[in-house]
Amino acid sequence: MDDRIIYMDHSGTTPLDSRVLEAMLPHLSQMFGNPSSIHSVGQDAKRALDESRESISRILGCRTSEVVFTSGGTESDNAALRGVVDALRQTGDHIITSAIEHHAVLHTCQYLENAGFDVTYLPVDYHGRIGPEQVQKAITDRTILVSIMLANNEIGTIQPIPEISQVVHDRAQALERTIVMHTDAVQAPGYLDLSTKRLGVNMLSLSAHKFRGPKGVGLLFIKRGTPWLPQQLGGSQERERRSGTENIAGIVGMAKALELADSEREVVSAHCAGLRDRIIKGIQSKIPDAHLNGHTTERLPNNVNFSFEQIEGEPILLGLDMAGICASSGSACSSGSLEPSHVLLALGQSADLARGSLRLTLGKDNTAEEVDYLLTALGDLIHRLRQMPSLSTTGF
Amino acid sequence: MDDRIIYMDHSGTTPLDSRVLEAMLPHLSQMFGNPSSIHSVGQDAKRALDESRESISRILGCRTSEVVFTSGGTESDNAALRGVVDALRQTGDHIITSAIEHHAVLHTCQYLENAGFDVTYLPVDYHGRIGPEQVQKAITDRTILVSIMLANNEIGTIQPIPEISQVVHDRAQALERTIVMHTDAVQAPGYLDLSTKRLGVNMLSLSAHKFRGPKGVGLLFIKRGTPWLPQQLGGSQERERRSGTENIAGIVGMAKALELADSEREVVSAHCAGLRDRIIKGIQSKIPDAHLNGHTTERLPNNVNFSFEQIEGEPILLGLDMAGICASSGSACSSGSLEPSHVLLALGQSADLARGSLRLTLGKDNTAEEVDYLLTALGDLIHRLRQMPSLSTTGF
Repeated sequence: MDDRIIYMDHSGTTPLDSRVLEAMLPHLSQMFGNPSSIHSVGQDAKRALDESRESISRILGCRTSEVVFTSGGTESDNAALRGVVDALRQTGDHIITSAIEHHAVLHTCQYLENAGFDVTYLPVDYHGRIGPEQVQKAITDRTILVSIMLANNEIGTIQPIPEISQVVHDRAQALERTIVMHTDAVQAPGYLDLSTKRLGVNMLSLSAHKFRGPKGVGLLFIKRGTPWLPQQLGGSQERERRSGTENIAGIVGMAKALELADSEREVVSAHCAGLRDRIIKGIQSKIPDAHLNGHTTERLPNNVNFSFEQIEGEPILLGLDMAGICASSGSACSSGSLEPSHVLLALGQSADLARGSLRLTLGKDNTAEEVDYLLTALGDLIHRLRQMPSLSTTGF
Repeated sequence: MDDRIIYMDHSGTTPLDSRVLEAMLPHLSQMFGNPSSIHSVGQDAKRALDESRESISRILGCRTSEVVFTSGGTESDNAALRGVVDALRQTGDHIITSAIEHHAVLHTCQYLENAGFDVTYLPVDYHGRIGPEQVQKAITDRTILVSIMLANNEIGTIQPIPEISQVVHDRAQALERTIVMHTDAVQAPGYLDLSTKRLGVNMLSLSAHKFRGPKGVGLLFIKRGTPWLPQQLGGSQERERRSGTENIAGIVGMAKALELADSEREVVSAHCAGLRDRIIKGIQSKIPDAHLNGHTTERLPNNVNFSFEQIEGEPILLGLDMAGICASSGSACSSGSLEPSHVLLALGQSADLARGSLRLTLGKDNTAEEVDYLLTALGDLIHRLRQMPSLSTTGF
């Protein structure tokens, strides 16, 4: 292999698609208006904003008025949870989520616990799945919100969101109360169907940089009639639901990226699934004491996650980086942390084993040749690491 | 004049500087990493993030650790106020602000009033100024936060922030309590000194698109030791003060734009002040019944704001737009609204007169030729509008 970098960390972030950049560039040069201005320069920006919203709403199968632009997935998740809680705190104080959510949801739930709310963190099975019946049982006459992610960012496990949404709506009807169903779908675009009707959700979060769009922009789908109060106040943008001058270039880029991700979904999914399975089979046949994390079939086409016995994740990542391969031990957000992944612990994995995890997340530009190079490099690396005296053994 | 647009709405938003775009482009193409990733691609992004923070902290005269990146001025203002209130609610429930703040501050204050806090909205004098003695008198033994903007976005009036900060700190010391001083400095870059030490503030908000940077990115300066709690939770970015994958291209662009704005400050200020005064004198000599809003000397070099008797602002804007001139009636955020500006009302202006306001905000690319064209077009337009039967007269 040459000096080229092999990037296998697409769940951390993705390269910007050159067609997305092309769509953004006019809005980073001559079309610079503020969409709130009534003059021509402002109205050009307003038009770009409206067109982006229309394009996105077609893919989400929703009304244009149901799309609220944000600064990313973390803001969307925070705003979803806090906004519902603000709107429904008079009717109940119970929230249901899962133990394997992204920290944007989990840390917000912990904040809400400190503010007096009661949060149920549903456990997952060994493959990281939550059953609709678990949600059904957890709902009480104080429940106001259920937030379950569509696909997990570390292990790629896909949750049965349509079935969970159905259970939530049925129970809400039986209890004659309003329960909002939110899903963090940040890892889904390009791989899963994003129809909000099929998913049956009231709210859904997306982040553009996870699907070859720009960083710093995302969206929150808020179905009409969903009780929710705005979190960022000021100039009344986004129909008073998210104040602040709109990031036009970012929004145009996100719309273009979502169009591309959606239109290329089947081809890219098949391509990534082929490479994914080649990696999984390769590791299972070449490297002893390697445990595949996550579900075997209900899994994002681009996700590989293994735990390796007797070694830590960080030296694996550093070794791969030396070999020109970009990978991750879990979520990018927690990379600096020495804590074992909360997701792997929730699967019932020991802290020791969870510390030896490796996530490889593929994209459409990855090739079979890259996979074969990875398999050789990884095999050699794990073998060498296992022969080195471990930190704990040598007493450092 | 040819078909070229004359843009005089720089307080609404500014064109992106081509040198800023140039700095951003690598981060919208090959340098796409997530700074939280420990591999080389992520670490390249981390380096760009660190360098941007260093550059900005030099201009703010602060530590790099005191700069928190946000999605813009509105988020910064919201987060500043809510974060202080969350941290200090045990020690007091009183907030001081002014009647002419941006809605990002005012609407957050109204939200906090609904949550049980007591807010003093200090009145301003006819020129839009607040005196330090007003702040001094308003501080009580329940005060936790003072938020006064550095320069007003509609009328350009500059507040004596160093003196106000001094009063706040002196009173806090005398009362043996913590009172946080925040300033919304969104309109200041490129025109005013941003030294946080000279300003004496604990917190300061900026928005990149107001100084020829990109939309969708801003910052909050938080002086070390300031009691404040994070508002956006998740992946622990920005030293756990603002979670969410960093908008690297936007942050790099903001840093470059701030460097340029600061280094060109004297030249651009002098250029704009010359044009500003030419407009003010031109209007005062050519157009009867025109009232200059704001201070005559303590005023942003690029701000002109007039109220014209007997006419409304909207037809002025539409007429100017037809003549190829982009202007505003007040803040861009309130452009769609038929309400008279809260800022002009706070000056003691009647609602009728306030409805006939025009804001012209200049930038470095505006020319004397453009100003002369504007003065002719505006003079003709106001004359014609005053001869038309008003909407109220004809009973529509």
